[in-house]
Amino acid sequence: MKEVKAPKGTYRFLEDKGDFQQLVDRYDNFLFDCDGVLWFGTDVFPGVISVLQKLRKLNKQVLFVTNNASKSRRDLLDRFESMGVQAAEREVFSSAYASALYLKEVLQFPKDRKVFVVGMSGLEHELDAVGIQHIGGTVGDSLTQDPEQNLKITGTDFSPLLEPGVFDDSVAAVMCGIDTDMNYVKMAKAFRYLTRQNATEEVKSGEKGGGCHFLCTNQDSTFPSKSGSWPGAGSVWAGIQESTGRKPTVIGKPNQPMLDTVFAGYSFDRSRTLMVGDRLNTDIAFGAHGGLDTLLVLSGISQEAEILQEGAAVVPTYVTKSLGELDVLDP
Amino acid sequence: MKEVKAPKGTYRFLEDKGDFQQLVDRYDNFLFDCDGVLWFGTDVFPGVISVLQKLRKLNKQVLFVTNNASKSRRDLLDRFESMGVQAAEREVFSSAYASALYLKEVLQFPKDRKVFVVGMSGLEHELDAVGIQHIGGTVGDSLTQDPEQNLKITGTDFSPLLEPGVFDDSVAAVMCGIDTDMNYVKMAKAFRYLTRQNATEEVKSGEKGGGCHFLCTNQDSTFPSKSGSWPGAGSVWAGIQESTGRKPTVIGKPNQPMLDTVFAGYSFDRSRTLMVGDRLNTDIAFGAHGGLDTLLVLSGISQEAEILQEGAAVVPTYVTKSLGELDVLDP
Repeated sequence: MKEVKAPKGTYRFLEDKGDFQQLVDRYDNFLFDCDGVLWFGTDVFPGVISVLQKLRKLNKQVLFVTNNASKSRRDLLDRFESMGVQAAEREVFSSAYASALYLKEVLQFPKDRKVFVVGMSGLEHELDAVGIQHIGGTVGDSLTQDPEQNLKITGTDFSPLLEPGVFDDSVAAVMCGIDTDMNYVKMAKAFRYLTRQNATEEVKSGEKGGGCHFLCTNQDSTFPSKSGSWPGAGSVWAGIQESTGRKPTVIGKPNQPMLDTVFAGYSFDRSRTLMVGDRLNTDIAFGAHGGLDTLLVLSGISQEAEILQEGAAVVPTYVTKSLGELDVLDP
Repeated sequence: MKEVKAPKGTYRFLEDKGDFQQLVDRYDNFLFDCDGVLWFGTDVFPGVISVLQKLRKLNKQVLFVTNNASKSRRDLLDRFESMGVQAAEREVFSSAYASALYLKEVLQFPKDRKVFVVGMSGLEHELDAVGIQHIGGTVGDSLTQDPEQNLKITGTDFSPLLEPGVFDDSVAAVMCGIDTDMNYVKMAKAFRYLTRQNATEEVKSGEKGGGCHFLCTNQDSTFPSKSGSWPGAGSVWAGIQESTGRKPTVIGKPNQPMLDTVFAGYSFDRSRTLMVGDRLNTDIAFGAHGGLDTLLVLSGISQEAEILQEGAAVVPTYVTKSLGELDVLDP
């Protein structure tokens, strides 16, 4: 095991069978980021399927932790299956699922209140699954809740937004995620919910937190796809933050609410749990802040030079070329 | 003239006829912000029309400097007229006009290149007026340039954006302003123009600045209207900044390109020019950074307490209750 000194600490570079054997002996639970670790786009990295099988054979607990909130866990499982990666629903943690759980468990979001969603069906499904009412999202902005008749502003005539019924007094949270159908009207509605002075007293006082909560699934500024990067969740809600001057509670990696969700479902020994990811400032920071050891794989975004920079945010415990490298382990 | 000490300096509070007489004797040129100074929504403040007439009678040069880029100068003049405020086209400076001039004069934007607009007709008209080609804006995102057939992304299938013709190789600048029809596709297109690696060599090298310029009319986070505030230009482009990691050149107040436009049209003596506005961090900062004396009117956003705060950004030269106060001057 080669030790490498970086400005912010020391990491171990794993490269041979002995290194990987020590690694799997040292941990019981393996948390994996997906994009850039297991696959890129629709291409699974070589060796990954076999490595995951070997870990399961060794009775290791395998979990998948993704910031992708465009899909529900059910949709994500379809994706796992289509790529030939074995996974069960209870092994998959997405920022959409974590967001729904956060509303329910941490905020104890009242049953008679609604969430205004700026996001996609994956997020809506997860809210449904925990029994939280929501409006907005894919349902459309119009009074008829018909996406085809969405409310439209002409020039700077904002009067359509003033029609009775456009704003719902029972909204007590705005939840944002990636939304490829984001538009000005959604931003304007979120803005008003988050800045309104005339919330009913009940909403204002709230069971937990007054007024209207501002939550975001994740802060990734870009969204990776086969056709390259496109604006991500953090870019979708940037305008809502800018207009309201409010900073949202962000659920996904590198923030801890996401990890709290994992630990609410599994009573892991943190010292026997390893976070595996390809991004220093999301995956590795996420694990490190949560008291986990971390493994950076160089098959995705972050390269080794990033750790060696003076301004590196965090140092992983281990670094290796790719997850597939572990395939040298005995079957 | 009452002198008031603030943490960052001293200002004079103007309240009687003698104070105002000294003020008009001291300056030849008066630059006015509009919203919150002349009017609010469609209501002209009492005394304002008379004060402007008196200044003109005294042969003072009167100019209007607004960050509102939703309208062209022609449209703005219609608004002035409808409110009974006398103004000529050459007296009106908007951030849309300043942006078009900046492209033409400062960047010497090539005639065979195009600007991708995230903005409204006012901005498009000003680009037309200086002979700069543009796409996007109100023209629609579709290949047919028909806003009714706008390109649409379903889920996270970005393939419609990959159709040939969606991106125009001759785009060499992205210009953003307030856009009440902002949407994800516009953000995604701006993102790609601003991050593309495959710009033609000619665009990359450019006459001035390589790749693709990123310009914004103004950075106001909210847009004032009769029905209260709504997200402003700064909120519309926040997501583009977040996704690209690029900081735009911002033209409007408090930035100096806007003032450069005024001084390109008029050879004023800066020491005889007064900027009048209602916002400390835009209007007053704008004037102060440009070496002008400033008058804060308390009829709009900023109240006196803001100047007296420890963290105040700037101190105006003068403060008065409202522009209408000057109506005590002799006719």
